[in-house]
Amino acid sequence: MPVYKAPVKDTLFVLNDVLSLQNYGNLPGFADLGPETLEAIVGEAAKLAEEQFFPLNLPGDSQGCKRNDDATVAVPDGFKQAYDAYCQGGWLGLAVPEEFGGQGLPYTLHAAVGEYMSSANISLTMYPGLTQGAIAAILVHGSDAQKAKYLPKMVEGIWSGTMNLTEPHCGTDLGLLRTKAVPAGDGSYKISGQKIFISAGEHPMTENIIHLVLARIEGAPAGTKGISLFIVPKFIVNEDGTPGARNGVACGAIEHKMGIHGNSTCVMNYDDATGYLIGAENKGLAAMFVMMNEARLGVGLQGLSIGEAAYQNAASYARDRLQGRALTGPKAPEKAADPIIVHPDVRRALMTMRAYTEAGRAFTLWTALKSDIAHRSPDAVERQMADDLLSLATPILKGVLTDKGFDHAVAAQQVFGGHGYIEEHGMSQYVRDARITMIYEGANGIQALDLVGRKLAANGGRAVMAMFKEIGDFCEENRGDEKLTFFTKGLKKGLNDLQAATMWFMQNAMAKPDNAGAGSTDYMHLFGTVVLGYMWAKMAKAAEDALAAGDPRKDFLEAKLVTARFYMERIMPETALRKTRIEAGADSLMALSADAF
Amino acid sequence: MPVYKAPVKDTLFVLNDVLSLQNYGNLPGFADLGPETLEAIVGEAAKLAEEQFFPLNLPGDSQGCKRNDDATVAVPDGFKQAYDAYCQGGWLGLAVPEEFGGQGLPYTLHAAVGEYMSSANISLTMYPGLTQGAIAAILVHGSDAQKAKYLPKMVEGIWSGTMNLTEPHCGTDLGLLRTKAVPAGDGSYKISGQKIFISAGEHPMTENIIHLVLARIEGAPAGTKGISLFIVPKFIVNEDGTPGARNGVACGAIEHKMGIHGNSTCVMNYDDATGYLIGAENKGLAAMFVMMNEARLGVGLQGLSIGEAAYQNAASYARDRLQGRALTGPKAPEKAADPIIVHPDVRRALMTMRAYTEAGRAFTLWTALKSDIAHRSPDAVERQMADDLLSLATPILKGVLTDKGFDHAVAAQQVFGGHGYIEEHGMSQYVRDARITMIYEGANGIQALDLVGRKLAANGGRAVMAMFKEIGDFCEENRGDEKLTFFTKGLKKGLNDLQAATMWFMQNAMAKPDNAGAGSTDYMHLFGTVVLGYMWAKMAKAAEDALAAGDPRKDFLEAKLVTARFYMERIMPETALRKTRIEAGADSLMALSADAF
Repeated sequence: MPVYKAPVKDTLFVLNDVLSLQNYGNLPGFADLGPETLEAIVGEAAKLAEEQFFPLNLPGDSQGCKRNDDATVAVPDGFKQAYDAYCQGGWLGLAVPEEFGGQGLPYTLHAAVGEYMSSANISLTMYPGLTQGAIAAILVHGSDAQKAKYLPKMVEGIWSGTMNLTEPHCGTDLGLLRTKAVPAGDGSYKISGQKIFISAGEHPMTENIIHLVLARIEGAPAGTKGISLFIVPKFIVNEDGTPGARNGVACGAIEHKMGIHGNSTCVMNYDDATGYLIGAENKGLAAMFVMMNEARLGVGLQGLSIGEAAYQNAASYARDRLQGRALTGPKAPEKAADPIIVHPDVRRALMTMRAYTEAGRAFTLWTALKSDIAHRSPDAVERQMADDLLSLATPILKGVLTDKGFDHAVAAQQVFGGHGYIEEHGMSQYVRDARITMIYEGANGIQALDLVGRKLAANGGRAVMAMFKEIGDFCEENRGDEKLTFFTKGLKKGLNDLQAATMWFMQNAMAKPDNAGAGSTDYMHLFGTVVLGYMWAKMAKAAEDALAAGDPRKDFLEAKLVTARFYMERIMPETALRKTRIEAGADSLMALSADAF
Repeated sequence: MPVYKAPVKDTLFVLNDVLSLQNYGNLPGFADLGPETLEAIVGEAAKLAEEQFFPLNLPGDSQGCKRNDDATVAVPDGFKQAYDAYCQGGWLGLAVPEEFGGQGLPYTLHAAVGEYMSSANISLTMYPGLTQGAIAAILVHGSDAQKAKYLPKMVEGIWSGTMNLTEPHCGTDLGLLRTKAVPAGDGSYKISGQKIFISAGEHPMTENIIHLVLARIEGAPAGTKGISLFIVPKFIVNEDGTPGARNGVACGAIEHKMGIHGNSTCVMNYDDATGYLIGAENKGLAAMFVMMNEARLGVGLQGLSIGEAAYQNAASYARDRLQGRALTGPKAPEKAADPIIVHPDVRRALMTMRAYTEAGRAFTLWTALKSDIAHRSPDAVERQMADDLLSLATPILKGVLTDKGFDHAVAAQQVFGGHGYIEEHGMSQYVRDARITMIYEGANGIQALDLVGRKLAANGGRAVMAMFKEIGDFCEENRGDEKLTFFTKGLKKGLNDLQAATMWFMQNAMAKPDNAGAGSTDYMHLFGTVVLGYMWAKMAKAAEDALAAGDPRKDFLEAKLVTARFYMERIMPETALRKTRIEAGADSLMALSADAF
């Protein structure tokens, strides 16, 4: 049976020792978050994840969701109770402003505990996750009346939310979408069309479902400039705030997916459904991107979450499974064989997962903190800088953490040998569940293009320059510290490759955009490798500082240093390969005619 | 719906232009294999794969296998008919000696057409595939009476075969196995125990199933030195060769696997089943390794096969799916959007699959030809040399082609975006099916250890020296050919890294074996990258030669040169990274205590 323990100690190390959350007491919501409070909150979330979400993960996968003939949808046993516990614990609105029923705590904290929920049960966590995305869009683009009408119920979790973008013929290219909106004369619209891949599209866990739907108002321009965003409630809300008449939206089918079987991914049919415009006409894409950007961070976090869960299972199995003997002679001579964790190749796999996951956690919380600063700082310059880095980091975080999360699930499954291929051990589920994170909310190739095509050049490269400066400064400031030399040297080498690749794009991709596209995925991973290396350098410094101060977490801190070393020895050297590939350009990619494939 | 066309032109290019099969007319079975005959045979296999195997692939996955209450097993609809067509076409015994009913044709040809069958339907192809492994073991280790009794029916496909190694507590470490054999007094044995993960363990497609079973004779030594191999027929064979009494072996359950659902992977229970010793007492592991080595090549081929099938689907989808516009402006302005094959990042994925798959095909057939020479050459020195290279190549082929086949299935699925995650498109199946190839017949970490721990040092490094010499000589011989300079230069650079890494092992792993284990997986891939690069250099030379001779396959040959260039630009540079990792050694891997994971 699978195992999972929330890595509370690691989370607190990042929040307290690496990011020094206590220094941000000036930001709204951060004031009372001393180490004890943090530990209490994070510990409560760990309990919920371990005790209520996790036991439903494997059964939820095998039971799945089912559409009944009346278009209602059944979800796995126990999901409703666990969802209710999550809502009642206040977790759904943890970072939502208090005026709408939230707790107003940092988004950083929301991300920290969100990791545990997704590790424990990604399919279940997606139900409130979609609601959180919808809340974010309504918060930014909704009218005051819309906020008052929908937000409190959504924050409480009595109503849930969805996002409806994809249609059968269009996903990435939303300009092609056909769902139409016809003015009804009373300020509302009649929405008709079909949406696919709609997570949590229909389920019995909430009394209402608030669908956010992209559609084209009759007569609007073609392409992305004619798309508007609508609120389409499953039950039209009465004047008194109660759910009223059933709206013309229904689940047409449940998709037959490779994984996340516990989440009801639906084909949604809209048939003259009543919808309410949110934000301005024809500005729907911008409004949807508010959800999308938050969702991208959330999906990156899912990659991290599954990688962590898979790692824990692989480590546990490797400690227990007796098979063969160590290359250096028996380590457990009293047993029939040694545990397979004695084998360097098994440890290579485990250390790789661990090195990425721990750095991925730091990077996620570092990015989440930028989001908090960008939204809450009283200082406009600080907000701007944080927003720059948040925008730059988002595609890297989504693309790299999900690619790696999937790799780790596969590697963890491999540690189990044949048993990993059998569903009962749960490793197949991690692989199948992780696979979607590379695809949804913008496939990772799109993240790479977003990075190279938009984020690099934005504001004359202001964000990327700031990032390079922050990493360069870190190396410079710690130059004299011998204990850190190994780490800063490795980081500096990676940064040099990243800067050279960036320069190569400037010189070669302006005139020939295919050179940017040809190197985009390698660039995203090159950037990710350097940023995660930066996180390791910061963690190494925090560990060294704490050890020097006589911190009682000696073994824990020394393990950080070992893992940091592993990262610099085995992972950071990838930057040179990525740079070489980028500099190869587009020629050999574009030489063949489409027919030759 | 998925698509598949057997790559006949590519196969013939490797057989005729690269390997020059016509030069081996002196070997038994090779005499009449001119280009026309080859084309006819390969074309027939293509037809069978495309028309009979492939249409059953997706339905077979969703239908799966089912154990009935009476312990019989149902396989997917249509499997029996397609299996019969395969047997009636003589494909099962293609490379088996004529005296046992085979056609005595080259194993190389068997591998060439085997690729198509596994591309079209891996689960179905495994049924005869297991029989072929069992035939190989009986051919080498069986008595004349056993050969006469079992082989003709197995070659005809009327009886099938299985291999029974794994038990719940042991897979890699067979020394731990507990299945016991008690002499029955009449020369036979009573076999009792449980085996798991038994492919094609029970099914209704043949009138008998010949299980090859590893067991420990009562009183035999513990560990691997006390293991014997037994023939355990499902129905005990009467004197007249007909199936007689039902033996004490039955399917206890069908495993719930991630993929290859069309193959009946069984828990097999042996309860005083009658078994016949094959080969010598306590020498069962050696006998099983005859099957195992052939099976490893077969599994490597499966990796290639799924990679090819997934590639074809991704290429087809990329040509058809309209979404967005090319970075360089619309390429299909008359359509609502461009096909996604205009995007360099999509082509990067496709070219990567293609570069590995085409080189993997050449490497597989190159290795299969070594097997033919090792078994059929009249010249003892030639046999020895070929056997050396076959032994060396086997773990590389198995490990690298299956790791890459899985990667390609994942990358191909990614090209489909969200649609790739939906079972109906078939891409999820390729990923799920490919996943097992990295695990069974020795997990890839075990292949890497076999390479580094056994194959490198065997006979004083004779095989690896021969391999380095062959590649080095190729570079040297073609040094003056300007058209090949780009390829030989890239290859030479890779070879240098491989030689340096090999030297590092010699200097650092003797005294400290963990250094070998820590670098084993990187070394396997480093070796694979160089060998596949060698295949590309050979293919480039064959293409240049043919073009210079005015060969009419102009576009086809020029595409080979483009893909060779892509390989050298983007894939070969990995060798430096692998070498760096190997030279990092074991220290940071072994530093943590097992509890720290």
